[in-house]
Amino acid sequence: MKKKIKLSELDLCPGKRIRLHRLLYKYGPGNGTLLLLPIDQGLEHGPVDFFANPDSADPGFQLKLAKEGGYSGIVFHVGLAEKYMREFAGEVPLILKLNGKTNIPSDDYAFSPQTASVEDAVRLGADAVGYTLYVGSPAQDEDMRQFAEIREDCEAYGMPLIMWAYPRGEAIETKGGKESLYAVDYAARVACELGADLVKLTFPKYDESKAKDLPKPYNELKLKPQEAMEKVVRSAGKTMVLVSGGGKMSDEDLLEKVKFSMEAGVTGLIFGRNMWQRDSDQALKMTEKIKRIMSEYGT
Amino acid sequence: MKKKIKLSELDLCPGKRIRLHRLLYKYGPGNGTLLLLPIDQGLEHGPVDFFANPDSADPGFQLKLAKEGGYSGIVFHVGLAEKYMREFAGEVPLILKLNGKTNIPSDDYAFSPQTASVEDAVRLGADAVGYTLYVGSPAQDEDMRQFAEIREDCEAYGMPLIMWAYPRGEAIETKGGKESLYAVDYAARVACELGADLVKLTFPKYDESKAKDLPKPYNELKLKPQEAMEKVVRSAGKTMVLVSGGGKMSDEDLLEKVKFSMEAGVTGLIFGRNMWQRDSDQALKMTEKIKRIMSEYGT
Amino acid sequence: MKKKIKLSELDLCPGKRIRLHRLLYKYGPGNGTLLLLPIDQGLEHGPVDFFANPDSADPGFQLKLAKEGGYSGIVFHVGLAEKYMREFAGEVPLILKLNGKTNIPSDDYAFSPQTASVEDAVRLGADAVGYTLYVGSPAQDEDMRQFAEIREDCEAYGMPLIMWAYPRGEAIETKGGKESLYAVDYAARVACELGADLVKLTFPKYDESKAKDLPKPYNELKLKPQEAMEKVVRSAGKTMVLVSGGGKMSDEDLLEKVKFSMEAGVTGLIFGRNMWQRDSDQALKMTEKIKRIMSEYGT
Amino acid sequence: MKKKIKLSELDLCPGKRIRLHRLLYKYGPGNGTLLLLPIDQGLEHGPVDFFANPDSADPGFQLKLAKEGGYSGIVFHVGLAEKYMREFAGEVPLILKLNGKTNIPSDDYAFSPQTASVEDAVRLGADAVGYTLYVGSPAQDEDMRQFAEIREDCEAYGMPLIMWAYPRGEAIETKGGKESLYAVDYAARVACELGADLVKLTFPKYDESKAKDLPKPYNELKLKPQEAMEKVVRSAGKTMVLVSGGGKMSDEDLLEKVKFSMEAGVTGLIFGRNMWQRDSDQALKMTEKIKRIMSEYGT
Amino acid sequence: MKKKIKLSELDLCPGKRIRLHRLLYKYGPGNGTLLLLPIDQGLEHGPVDFFANPDSADPGFQLKLAKEGGYSGIVFHVGLAEKYMREFAGEVPLILKLNGKTNIPSDDYAFSPQTASVEDAVRLGADAVGYTLYVGSPAQDEDMRQFAEIREDCEAYGMPLIMWAYPRGEAIETKGGKESLYAVDYAARVACELGADLVKLTFPKYDESKAKDLPKPYNELKLKPQEAMEKVVRSAGKTMVLVSGGGKMSDEDLLEKVKFSMEAGVTGLIFGRNMWQRDSDQALKMTEKIKRIMSEYGT
Repeated sequence: MKKKIKLSELDLCPGKRIRLHRLLYKYGPGNGTLLLLPIDQGLEHGPVDFFANPDSADPGFQLKLAKEGGYSGIVFHVGLAEKYMREFAGEVPLILKLNGKTNIPSDDYAFSPQTASVEDAVRLGADAVGYTLYVGSPAQDEDMRQFAEIREDCEAYGMPLIMWAYPRGEAIETKGGKESLYAVDYAARVACELGADLVKLTFPKYDESKAKDLPKPYNELKLKPQEAMEKVVRSAGKTMVLVSGGGKMSDEDLLEKVKFSMEAGVTGLIFGRNMWQRDSDQALKMTEKIKRIMSEYGT
Repeated sequence: MKKKIKLSELDLCPGKRIRLHRLLYKYGPGNGTLLLLPIDQGLEHGPVDFFANPDSADPGFQLKLAKEGGYSGIVFHVGLAEKYMREFAGEVPLILKLNGKTNIPSDDYAFSPQTASVEDAVRLGADAVGYTLYVGSPAQDEDMRQFAEIREDCEAYGMPLIMWAYPRGEAIETKGGKESLYAVDYAARVACELGADLVKLTFPKYDESKAKDLPKPYNELKLKPQEAMEKVVRSAGKTMVLVSGGGKMSDEDLLEKVKFSMEAGVTGLIFGRNMWQRDSDQALKMTEKIKRIMSEYGT
Repeated sequence: MKKKIKLSELDLCPGKRIRLHRLLYKYGPGNGTLLLLPIDQGLEHGPVDFFANPDSADPGFQLKLAKEGGYSGIVFHVGLAEKYMREFAGEVPLILKLNGKTNIPSDDYAFSPQTASVEDAVRLGADAVGYTLYVGSPAQDEDMRQFAEIREDCEAYGMPLIMWAYPRGEAIETKGGKESLYAVDYAARVACELGADLVKLTFPKYDESKAKDLPKPYNELKLKPQEAMEKVVRSAGKTMVLVSGGGKMSDEDLLEKVKFSMEAGVTGLIFGRNMWQRDSDQALKMTEKIKRIMSEYGT
Repeated sequence: MKKKIKLSELDLCPGKRIRLHRLLYKYGPGNGTLLLLPIDQGLEHGPVDFFANPDSADPGFQLKLAKEGGYSGIVFHVGLAEKYMREFAGEVPLILKLNGKTNIPSDDYAFSPQTASVEDAVRLGADAVGYTLYVGSPAQDEDMRQFAEIREDCEAYGMPLIMWAYPRGEAIETKGGKESLYAVDYAARVACELGADLVKLTFPKYDESKAKDLPKPYNELKLKPQEAMEKVVRSAGKTMVLVSGGGKMSDEDLLEKVKFSMEAGVTGLIFGRNMWQRDSDQALKMTEKIKRIMSEYGT
Repeated sequence: MKKKIKLSELDLCPGKRIRLHRLLYKYGPGNGTLLLLPIDQGLEHGPVDFFANPDSADPGFQLKLAKEGGYSGIVFHVGLAEKYMREFAGEVPLILKLNGKTNIPSDDYAFSPQTASVEDAVRLGADAVGYTLYVGSPAQDEDMRQFAEIREDCEAYGMPLIMWAYPRGEAIETKGGKESLYAVDYAARVACELGADLVKLTFPKYDESKAKDLPKPYNELKLKPQEAMEKVVRSAGKTMVLVSGGGKMSDEDLLEKVKFSMEAGVTGLIFGRNMWQRDSDQALKMTEKIKRIMSEYGT
């Protein structure tokens, strides 16, 4: 097992330390790992994702799951945060997502405009904020500048900053695609270089058919899944890694992913559709299984 | 009949609650429903819409109709609000529309620039503001950012915010068009995610010939009109829904639409051309009929 | 004769009322009508327009004409206002034009950037400001936003705001062109909706060959010149209309235009090239004839 | 000889008057004319221009020339001003160039971004600032807006403003090119309209082969060089004209140009490469000859 | 040997002088020369550069090298500066890189958005900041404007400013490429004109096959490497030159480059991959050799 970053080893301003301590040790697994429940798909994909479990269209469903399952926090855009936190205030920590977009136009020049501010996050009692940076998009100019301003506000308000580091845009498609180790590894490093406290990354995939398009030496690198994840964690450096789930997968695959990820040294998991596309009982059972694995990786 | 959102169940700052209470319970139907009269077509379409009823070119016509018919409010751009409210001050609540555009250039990259500010709305004694967001337009970056700034101002001034959530732009056209359930349903959710207090939506239409272009699973979904509207209301969540009329239709169709909408749980109606393209007497009679239906859906 | 708007019937802040009262009743015809002399062609067209009367290249020529002819005001860009008003200070009211452009690049995406501010107008003692909005231009986003900021400044400083509402851009060309009743009528309404106090419009022209391109029902509308102007004045509502002259025309045509316009209910005239492309004597004589007509339309 | 503008006849704020008086009467020819030495070619063209006289690559060369030759001022970008003025402080007036660009990309959409501010000019003790406006460039929107902000700052700080008014961009090329009388004449008027205190213009050229492309009536206008310059000076109105040299020419041509220009009523000369591409002695001798001519044109 | 710029000969505000004195005389070689270790490749190229020496993926490796090797400073983006300086605070001076980008999209319109501010640099105790300007890129407008704002902040905070002056973009490719003497020479001058205190430049290369594309007279200029570097240093004027290494080369080539550069009058070296792509021992030995050469060029 790879050594994980410990909060106590990081230089942080008091506000960031207090809020991160709360997320890492007072809610959720509580052993220095994080289990987050994101529900921003309504903006990113539309109500399409709620068909598998119609109850999930009501954010109250996810809040109840987050409370009963004992998640470290829930991820909302500002609208949901304002309208649905009421009964769960103080019970489920809020991570406010600060930018987003619909998936209706093409992703060639992917960019997510700001939908809320760090001031909104403070007003709403959030314990962290989330920002999607499309690594490698032709719109990276605007994206990195928007991120930099939010990073400065986070420093000023002591608000932990999680980067959703997503390789995206027409250029990455010609270099092996957005899910390759090259792409995810680069994204991990970008998050660290630009000053994210945590980074949300997808599990890198090896696709034989696209290997030749990868920049050297990735084109000749064929790592096992866990090794690939370890490499990515190394590239993120002192930025804590959260692994995202993406589309729903089988229980075995999911638990294997959890095991691999924790073993590779990630700090936590951020699983949305894989949890709330199940009914309440099944989601709680799976949450229980995941947390059992996570309990072995405390710091 | 679907349960409607009640004002008392929402977390709101005092200013928003006072203004919404006024709109919902002190003017118009007064039973927690809303009946709004919009007259922004002069900017959006030009004087073209006034040919059917030449009197309607004078905003005084709509103000008189709004007062005599007992509407919950009238929707104006800043120029009309400044020049025509005088005799109706305090008699007809003002909803100030904050952005708009002409329909002369193409809608491929649809975007409505800001034409007035929340400060203007406060200065003019408005009880709410309106904002058109073109959901899915390639210009969504600029649009969502502009909306976010207005949303923050609304929070600061306690001003209720109504989003005209219109699917628009070249991308939506390739995915089944702007009137499909997919498009309207997505728009409803976007309004909720981004923090609108109310959302103006069109009635979704089922078009057999375009069904194949719809993203899954909408391509195989064939709901009855009222079911479709119920789905949309569910997607809007705690954002109250206003149904718009669009182009003029027959009396029967209009009243059926009203019935379906109220039954589906919408909070109110926002009918422009369907009302003021009639002469004064006919418009008042139709208003009366609509309000009789609405009176059965108080909260 | 159509009833004209009276200043006393309008809701206005004190600064706007004082300045408009001065323009309408203390200078020029002085009977509630306006006669303005614009000289911004040096920026808009270059010195080309001064060949017909070389003296006109010196703004002192127009100032002398404005003073001796008894105009309600002169329209200058900031450079001319700063350098030439000296001897005419308090004798000829200044309308400061706040945006403009050269006509060297194509008009397809027509947009006039700001060249001076409302603060400049206050500093220079202006009694109104002018703004060109290219109605229907693909650049309308930027244009309407720029206008909105100036409108707010005008409200703050009590400065009357005249919109040069010019249909322009590639889209209007495909819909019957910039001089059609459709185009001018739409422009009139836009000025009113967006909050201009006065609007400068061209006299609409009927062009048989382009009628089929006009949006319905304009494609079947064939009004006499004065009827067309009346329609436009109606669309402008409580925004006072100024009719512009455009390129130089015959004396008969010009006087007929004046008569038609005043009869149609416009508040005033803004004639540039038609006046200062004549020598001083002829220009004064024509001014006299025009004012004689205007004297019959006081309010 | 045409009458030149006198400082005493202009309305100016005290700061502008003091600084202009210093430039016109206390340094250089000292008789109300100006002789400026520009050295911004290092940014505009790169070190290419210094090959003719390698010493000229060191800005100390130009400063020494300006001091010994008795120039009215030297034109620097901020970097040179900060690093090289030390020994010449108070000996050679500084004109700070506020925008510029490299000539590596195409000039089709020519635009010079701001490289320093009026505040920089104040801090560095400058007596005027320079701004390049590319008259007629498709980027004129951004250019005119940038200029307007600088103009307002100049008014606030009492800093004289010189416009480098250069016709440029793809559109001007289709209308007879950037050196035609049409182009230069238009540029002169633009400087006056937009509020420049002085304008730097090139000597207009008559090119038979392009005459047909010129807008009417320039296409049929064939003036002698001095007449053309007189026309341009008239178009600039109360904005003082500085004639630039452009690429190096023969001594006879240069002196003839000086004579023509002064005779045509320009206020001064701004010669760069024509002076500092000579060695020190020759440059001083030529300076002497030029100043002798200028001495006959005092005001 | 060419004479190098001495700090004492420059006009500088106290803050810049103090920080530069520290970098030039208190750390690193300490004789008025500079040896900097940059580690921004993780953002610019991704983790690709760390394969040659996997230890180098951890910024702690470079910090240890910088401390033990006695470098004048280390170059970090804000994320690394915040997370890794802790143990080396006060031991290794920090140069904060203020802009950057990934190399995933094309370089045709190369531009590096701001990733941190001068205020960040002050907060983090940096002794200088770095900025990449892509000289000649079609995006130079935005780039030069962004640089100008940072330059003003540097003046206000007394923070030395190093420009990474990189010829880049589609236009430079048609004029002989980014590594030609023409390109590097122009870049050197741009840094001086725009107000950089130091400039990072690559060693110019002569490429016979592209010589014909070079602008005159560079197309006929064939200088020996050291002469070329001397020319570049001359063009940078009073802006101190740092030579960068680029991709890894042989020891002999590297040391020759060092010798040539110092002989040509550069102030220092900024070698990244050439140092940290070696293991710790070899890197320290090479550092020692380089510093031995540098010790002969004190000022």
